[in-house]
Amino acid sequence: MSKQKISVCLSPKLVSCYADENSVIIVIDVLRATSAICTALHHGAEKVIPVVDVRVARDYLNKGYIVGAERGGEIVAGFKYGNSPLTYAGEHVAGKTIVLTTSNGTFALEAAQMAHQVIIGSFLNLNAVSSWLKNQDRDIVLLCAGWKHKFNMEDTLFAGAVVSELLAGNMVLEVSDSAIAAEILYDKAKDNMFEFLGNTSHRNRLRSLDIEEDVRFCLTLNTTSVIPVLMHGSIVKMEDHYG
Amino acid sequence: MSKQKISVCLSPKLVSCYADENSVIIVIDVLRATSAICTALHHGAEKVIPVVDVRVARDYLNKGYIVGAERGGEIVAGFKYGNSPLTYAGEHVAGKTIVLTTSNGTFALEAAQMAHQVIIGSFLNLNAVSSWLKNQDRDIVLLCAGWKHKFNMEDTLFAGAVVSELLAGNMVLEVSDSAIAAEILYDKAKDNMFEFLGNTSHRNRLRSLDIEEDVRFCLTLNTTSVIPVLMHGSIVKMEDHYG
Repeated sequence: MSKQKISVCLSPKLVSCYADENSVIIVIDVLRATSAICTALHHGAEKVIPVVDVRVARDYLNKGYIVGAERGGEIVAGFKYGNSPLTYAGEHVAGKTIVLTTSNGTFALEAAQMAHQVIIGSFLNLNAVSSWLKNQDRDIVLLCAGWKHKFNMEDTLFAGAVVSELLAGNMVLEVSDSAIAAEILYDKAKDNMFEFLGNTSHRNRLRSLDIEEDVRFCLTLNTTSVIPVLMHGSIVKMEDHYG
Repeated sequence: MSKQKISVCLSPKLVSCYADENSVIIVIDVLRATSAICTALHHGAEKVIPVVDVRVARDYLNKGYIVGAERGGEIVAGFKYGNSPLTYAGEHVAGKTIVLTTSNGTFALEAAQMAHQVIIGSFLNLNAVSSWLKNQDRDIVLLCAGWKHKFNMEDTLFAGAVVSELLAGNMVLEVSDSAIAAEILYDKAKDNMFEFLGNTSHRNRLRSLDIEEDVRFCLTLNTTSVIPVLMHGSIVKMEDHYG
């Protein structure tokens, strides 16, 4: 019997090299889409509908939905919300459907949808995701949304954190080179991720957007036990779906 | 003026995200294609013609060329040579044209050819490549051939070694997240790369092919000052071309 595999896919463009219809994929866009999704569901949002196209998002806006639309790190003109998790942290989202389109995260979700199951990960729900994965027997693909299809550091660090948790839990896994690399990077960064990311290109870009508070929020571990799962095009809490 | 950029492209599938017609690309397939190319030119081969298709390689074979053909780490049936550098280390290649088709390396070369200039790198010519790059003012893309379009560790380590050399040389560069990651990995591995790679998937795969001698050869630093450069579809020594 072949061992259960764990790999890190460092760009949505490579997903077909790593995953198939039997895989479990964890979609990762730490800064900030998947952190925002975890936050919205934690605060009681009923579901999050990811859409790739801003025009589709605008249609939802006109119908009265809460809609987040982000491109290049900024809120798209005409929308009230972007991908800042802090803006979804409140009672205003409870029971609501949120529609979300972002530069990288929603593209990664679309790339992932052929998988057996698609979970949303961020540092906010690291333990919850890792604990759930420990009970799966399918191949695991940690899919980093990256930045414009490129490698980015923060998503890789989260992937490395998950690899680290699973290996520490004595799971017997066939670990891909990319997963080994991600774990090494996380080990190097984990004692001060904010500082570590201070030198990376994406953080430099985000610094110019003045979102330090968001970044610190997104790098906080285990503030929620929510596991968002993609179901028929919507993201819901796993416990809501499985009861 | 924007700073000169250095990035590591971790899969040939992502090359268009990192490079354009103004870039200098260093193609990297440490185990074993680019090590074989460096070795052949070091031993006096006049040029290496990379071909993607085994049928084209067979045509050259029938015309009497020295042809290397490798798929899945093994010599393709009907050919005498594969991608083992040791088989190109001798007088039999002097003055000859070598034709080479390999699983990953020749695909990466094809992906790179839109660039301004394409150089071939391996640990064997690390210093030569790094020294040459220090005098370039174009954006630099270190293109890892990887394994079946996936990330692999050994190519990333070489990319990290080049990043490390250039930054130590006080070049003022805009360093991509992938380049930062590669440098960290190289720093972790450099004192014993053979041991470090012992745990990676590609090495495990290669171990089953019994090529430990090849791997040790390919991980040896600076055994040649040759800089192979792609010119009109052939790879030649830079000094032969520029005189």
